[in-house]
Amino acid sequence: MPGVGVRSAQRMAFYVLQAKECNIDSLTRAIAEVKKNISFCRECNNLSESDLCAVCSDQKRDRSKICVVEGPNGVMAMERIGSYNGLYHVLLGSLSPIDGIGPGDIKIEDLVRRTGEPGVKEVIVATDFTTEGQTTALFISKALSSSGVKVTRLSRGVPEGACVEYADVGTLQRAFEDRRAA
Amino acid sequence: MPGVGVRSAQRMAFYVLQAKECNIDSLTRAIAEVKKNISFCRECNNLSESDLCAVCSDQKRDRSKICVVEGPNGVMAMERIGSYNGLYHVLLGSLSPIDGIGPGDIKIEDLVRRTGEPGVKEVIVATDFTTEGQTTALFISKALSSSGVKVTRLSRGVPEGACVEYADVGTLQRAFEDRRAA
Repeated sequence: MPGVGVRSAQRMAFYVLQAKECNIDSLTRAIAEVKKNISFCRECNNLSESDLCAVCSDQKRDRSKICVVEGPNGVMAMERIGSYNGLYHVLLGSLSPIDGIGPGDIKIEDLVRRTGEPGVKEVIVATDFTTEGQTTALFISKALSSSGVKVTRLSRGVPEGACVEYADVGTLQRAFEDRRAA
Repeated sequence: MPGVGVRSAQRMAFYVLQAKECNIDSLTRAIAEVKKNISFCRECNNLSESDLCAVCSDQKRDRSKICVVEGPNGVMAMERIGSYNGLYHVLLGSLSPIDGIGPGDIKIEDLVRRTGEPGVKEVIVATDFTTEGQTTALFISKALSSSGVKVTRLSRGVPEGACVEYADVGTLQRAFEDRRAA
């Protein structure tokens, strides 16, 4: 499991050995239930307890916008800001040629299909600002260039509340390049 | 002195008492020399060993651009990115109504005068993304609105290399609002 090294694994194994039978029962049940009940939304690939996730099945969401994120955590982050009311598309990964992850390995084809559906006006690319995320954003922007749908990207720059003198060189460089009318 | 509490002050005082005479001589000389030799550039208020600072007196700098920073540390940060070749204007502070710091207390009037000089085409506001820095940026943008000079602001958003899921709510909110064509 990710994040579990030899020592943590040992600690967990000893816990299982020493714990009460009923606790272990509820642990195994919880794991089995997650696996059984949570799956991916057939529309956006977000985590979901049913065929369509809570966002996709919410009729109050603005269906003209699709926000593209790398994983379900991206959906949670965007939901926290409170001002986004559109739909999502979860790629379940990002392009990484060095690891052999190409366009066929993540849900880009689905995105192209969804973008072509009537009523879609804007695709907001909210992949990470890492090398993989940026590569993915570029690929998506090219893949959708002939779709007639507006493709936007979250802005990169100095974080809210931050001091210019403490911003790292790369961030300040982008903030300078992407400067906008004040 | 900022950052020096009671305990640090005591430690420093004991150091002075126990140190060799020659070390204390060179310490007092260094302090006196900084005070005597370093002053503020008469053009941009940056730290300088002469009347005009190294940037203002460099004929290779692009005189059509002025980058506005709060302090000399802002100049150092912008110089580190390596791609900015214009001049600077150091405000020596930022607007903070709550602390009673108004436009007359920082070098905004000088900026307005310099912006009016022939050849100036762009003022890039690189004040911090704190409440004070944003207030200052807004004030400057209004003060220069009738000057005919383009006023720009460093972009705010997700920092270079960062993951969307770990960006704080405020930053992600701005990155969404300031999204741009991909």
